[in-house]
Amino acid sequence: MKIKMVSRILEANDRIALENRKKFNEADVFVINLMSAPGAGKTSLIEQTIKTLRNNLRIGIIEGDIAGTDDAQRIEGLGIPVIQINTGSACHLDANMINDIIDDFPIKDLDLLIVENVGNLVCPAEFKIGEDMKCMILSVAEGDDKPLKYPLMFRESSALILNKIDLLPHIETDIEKIKRDSLSLNPSLQIFGVSCKTGKGLAQWTEWLQAAVKK
Amino acid sequence: MKIKMVSRILEANDRIALENRKKFNEADVFVINLMSAPGAGKTSLIEQTIKTLRNNLRIGIIEGDIAGTDDAQRIEGLGIPVIQINTGSACHLDANMINDIIDDFPIKDLDLLIVENVGNLVCPAEFKIGEDMKCMILSVAEGDDKPLKYPLMFRESSALILNKIDLLPHIETDIEKIKRDSLSLNPSLQIFGVSCKTGKGLAQWTEWLQAAVKK
Repeated sequence: MKIKMVSRILEANDRIALENRKKFNEADVFVINLMSAPGAGKTSLIEQTIKTLRNNLRIGIIEGDIAGTDDAQRIEGLGIPVIQINTGSACHLDANMINDIIDDFPIKDLDLLIVENVGNLVCPAEFKIGEDMKCMILSVAEGDDKPLKYPLMFRESSALILNKIDLLPHIETDIEKIKRDSLSLNPSLQIFGVSCKTGKGLAQWTEWLQAAVKK
Repeated sequence: MKIKMVSRILEANDRIALENRKKFNEADVFVINLMSAPGAGKTSLIEQTIKTLRNNLRIGIIEGDIAGTDDAQRIEGLGIPVIQINTGSACHLDANMINDIIDDFPIKDLDLLIVENVGNLVCPAEFKIGEDMKCMILSVAEGDDKPLKYPLMFRESSALILNKIDLLPHIETDIEKIKRDSLSLNPSLQIFGVSCKTGKGLAQWTEWLQAAVKK
């Protein structure tokens, strides 16, 4: 019974995601659904990406959070169009939440729309929102056992950004194990090791992203 | 419509949680529902807690994960009774999952049962499983904005364990802000700063826990 409801919810979600996708295509905007566990560095990566690519691409951001507007305020401080979605208790964004605000957002004036999902390594991967691709961040401080414990997000993502590599000397995480296990789940996954704090590795990410948007 | 379904699910869950609670009370076992985001250190805290308290308390563990048995194997290596629950796609444990295995577990021979929930800072806090108390871990590497962004778990927990304090010199997290914001959500919250890696701060946690179990 419960499973049936979930499957009906997912079917309904997919229909709305297709509508969103059509609107995004008409506006010629590339849409990324950016996912991670809480505190892996989604907002930091978005800030760094904006700083590097804002002269080349017109960027907009949708911020998803259970509560609060901290992240949207950080982005707004950069002078970038941003909308905050507060989900209340929902642990993920769904297509309908995006559909509700899509017409209030200047998507026709954008090349790249990054949607920052709620911090959660599980459910966001199940709900399409009409994106061109999903990307995920894993903080290396979370440990090297995450791909095999939370496989769906690793399978669904086009890129995996391993953040906080500046902490590697202070922790026991085996970054090669993360890469190996992630690729075993998803052989075409693009993997970037970065530190949003020091800037290390970010150029490879932003170059790859810019190429994907312009394709 | 969607909200109605969720509320029916929660009502049904609460009924089963009460059944579980009754069985736990009859067995005279104290039950903790241990929650956190992925990689905050739930299994490490459980390992350290077992090592310190195993001579004073008879301890058993239920391990909840989407997939895999890594954590249960770590606990089994310590010679402690453990059952693994793999939720498949569910992002949290619910009362029914616990009810399904409760009769296969030697709860009458235990003083303390720790249930390690799925790594998720959102949904586990919504689902009672029949526990005496909820405890949560926050890795300080996740940042100091988490209480206000994920308030429910902070509100529902009796204790907050701030783990990985050995990393504080290498990150920008303001631990006093975490404490302040957490207490604003939940003034009776017990807060412990610990490092499962170095052992710092763990004695305060295990002493408090032992007192709670024996009360």
